[in-house]
Amino acid sequence: MEEKKVVLRDLLLKHPADIAEVLSHLSDEQASDLLHRLYLRRAAAEPLGEMEPEESAELLSELDRTEAIKILSRMDPDDAVDLLEELPEAEQRKILSSLGRKEAEVLTDLLAYPPDTAGGLMSPEVVALSLNMTAQEAIDLLRRRVEEAETVYYAYAVDEQGQLQGVLSLRDLALAQPETRLSSLLMREVISVPVEADVEEVARLFDKYNYYALPVIDSERKLLGIITIDDVIDVIREEATEDIYGMASVPIEERVDTTWLSSLRMRLPWLYVRLGTALLAAVVVGVFEETIAKVAALAVLMGVIAGQGGSAGMQTVTIITRGMALGELEPRRGWRLLAKEALLGIVNGLVIGATVGIITYLWKGDYLLGVAACLAMLFVLVVGGVAGVAIPLGLRGLGKDPALASGIFLTTVTDVLGFGFLFLLARLFLPGFK
Amino acid sequence: MEEKKVVLRDLLLKHPADIAEVLSHLSDEQASDLLHRLYLRRAAAEPLGEMEPEESAELLSELDRTEAIKILSRMDPDDAVDLLEELPEAEQRKILSSLGRKEAEVLTDLLAYPPDTAGGLMSPEVVALSLNMTAQEAIDLLRRRVEEAETVYYAYAVDEQGQLQGVLSLRDLALAQPETRLSSLLMREVISVPVEADVEEVARLFDKYNYYALPVIDSERKLLGIITIDDVIDVIREEATEDIYGMASVPIEERVDTTWLSSLRMRLPWLYVRLGTALLAAVVVGVFEETIAKVAALAVLMGVIAGQGGSAGMQTVTIITRGMALGELEPRRGWRLLAKEALLGIVNGLVIGATVGIITYLWKGDYLLGVAACLAMLFVLVVGGVAGVAIPLGLRGLGKDPALASGIFLTTVTDVLGFGFLFLLARLFLPGFK
Repeated sequence: MEEKKVVLRDLLLKHPADIAEVLSHLSDEQASDLLHRLYLRRAAAEPLGEMEPEESAELLSELDRTEAIKILSRMDPDDAVDLLEELPEAEQRKILSSLGRKEAEVLTDLLAYPPDTAGGLMSPEVVALSLNMTAQEAIDLLRRRVEEAETVYYAYAVDEQGQLQGVLSLRDLALAQPETRLSSLLMREVISVPVEADVEEVARLFDKYNYYALPVIDSERKLLGIITIDDVIDVIREEATEDIYGMASVPIEERVDTTWLSSLRMRLPWLYVRLGTALLAAVVVGVFEETIAKVAALAVLMGVIAGQGGSAGMQTVTIITRGMALGELEPRRGWRLLAKEALLGIVNGLVIGATVGIITYLWKGDYLLGVAACLAMLFVLVVGGVAGVAIPLGLRGLGKDPALASGIFLTTVTDVLGFGFLFLLARLFLPGFK
Repeated sequence: MEEKKVVLRDLLLKHPADIAEVLSHLSDEQASDLLHRLYLRRAAAEPLGEMEPEESAELLSELDRTEAIKILSRMDPDDAVDLLEELPEAEQRKILSSLGRKEAEVLTDLLAYPPDTAGGLMSPEVVALSLNMTAQEAIDLLRRRVEEAETVYYAYAVDEQGQLQGVLSLRDLALAQPETRLSSLLMREVISVPVEADVEEVARLFDKYNYYALPVIDSERKLLGIITIDDVIDVIREEATEDIYGMASVPIEERVDTTWLSSLRMRLPWLYVRLGTALLAAVVVGVFEETIAKVAALAVLMGVIAGQGGSAGMQTVTIITRGMALGELEPRRGWRLLAKEALLGIVNGLVIGATVGIITYLWKGDYLLGVAACLAMLFVLVVGGVAGVAIPLGLRGLGKDPALASGIFLTTVTDVLGFGFLFLLARLFLPGFK
């Protein structure tokens, strides 16, 4: 915005991530003009690889196709695929058919893997060494391949069938005596990632083992590619954003700089979903309209009681779904968690129920109303705790993402049951209804 | 649990992270016994470094002090400091005074940095090369230092004053001709981290630039240490957990395996905070008890209306706080965001207000009640949007973490104002009160 005229020479000295930042702050026209000038200096591919794929795809489609194709072929294949995935299929096919045959093949293979799996994350540009090389021969090979390889901090050794046999770090290689054979430097116990593994599982492996890169293999242990830790950081941040957004029913594509019209289109459907669940709870209240007309204090209590159930339940939901995301929740623990949360619900319910019961009695001087408030609070806190475990576990059992929908289900359950139980108690207990 | 007797020989072949996992699944007694046996094989330090500091500190304090001190001195200093921070101060001092003088100094220096800053995250074990070395000399130096250095994927060059002058990767070094001088291999434009930088800022730098390590400097550009990307992954996951927990008022220490009594102690205070805010809203409802007794339908509507305000406001809060955490929110954009959310509130409010107004009319046949519901919905959705921007920005302005408290403030505002406005409208509009 500030920088009306970007001086190309200064810009070229910067890190590609900084150039990417400049590009995404310019107007569409200025950005495509700058990208064109970067292209002429062979400096367009790297910054594009640093941008969000939606952004880079939009920017690239502003250029004429021959330029776009040249830039794409200079990008790292994993970044190029992320970008291609954002384009309409017809455009994808046109670009793939204009690329060199080998390049097109690599990209077509990568496009076949779902984006949220190890295959969608990996780069195929991995150097495979053979077991009987010496350290020096390996270094010489890596030196020749340094330009295209995704990383040479690790190198993997394969047998004649292409099956992964071991790993060695460039550190070990560079620091070893030159004539040492790879087979004696090799670590045979390689942590590897199955190509179909979920990205969350990949993130957990990196988090646990602290490696900078992991090899990706197919079901026959053939080496397919490599995933580097910097790509995993993006995944972890994105997964966290997804989970946080899920809790508040925010559409996953929205960011602070989304235009208001797109925000409206994305948020309104969610607000209608919420409205639907709120109306469900309202129907319960509506059924007891007469009861409320007689004892208006119930209208005061109902929000407090159902709200506490929702709050306590959301604490449970949050701990369970986060535990799942971090891989800390062992599947067979379901029953123990349920028992724990039920117990917590009872104790919390007695303590908070007594508090609310006493406040109600002090306010209205009606001890039966106080007892009703206390019991309803106890009930709704147990419901919140139990539903807080059952809903996310149930959603996961059905193959759904528990972070996305648990909150809506939970508050519906605590509202409906909380209101219903309070009003039922009132009808049973309070003298006016006898 | 399953493995009653852990076979040490098999275990020693495993990755330290796997050994750490075994340790944290054993009973206290079995774990300290295994740790002792690992210690005898000089294999206790690495698994301890892979555990959560609270866990490893507890485990270490089970051993006798001389063993504990030997293990600590073999740990990476950044891991050792994380562990020390979990111990009582008296214990910390005793351990530090029993360590070798140089080791104690390093740890004391590190302990002085707040844990949530770059200083608290860094390792001081960085190899500093001097500018006029050759590539071969640098490799030889690194080879001698490989055991103690935190990473030699990058090496940093400093001048005589210890000031950071440039960076080169081991990859460049290993692949360069041996006689090349460092000064010609060096990248002078080094991205570095100020020692007092917040960990979230550190995470952003790693996310943006995709480096595997970054050097940490003081205000005079002196090289103090190095932060590696694997430590940043932990930080990113922890920050995400904190933000997610904050949204649901879950105490930050709680995990799926926390005992029920600790969970109770941690969650109950939060439930009381929520109860306090709910009672505040209840007071507003209580003021209008008579109004409700006359038009019980208001009790049905009030939850729907305040709930929508809360839902819409939480969408806004979530986008704003996540944008802050990811560093995507530029400070001077506050007013534009406020305008955008106010506009969204008006449009959402008209659409959803009309829906609810019509439903109300169809239900009660009272068009004035429908109009009141529609206007109250419009009002509360504008309030939700505006407060959804103002609360997190305000909290940040006060130096508080917006992710932790925004939700509670927001729902209090939408409840109190939503209820209040609906009842006021009812008194003004509805014939019964004229």
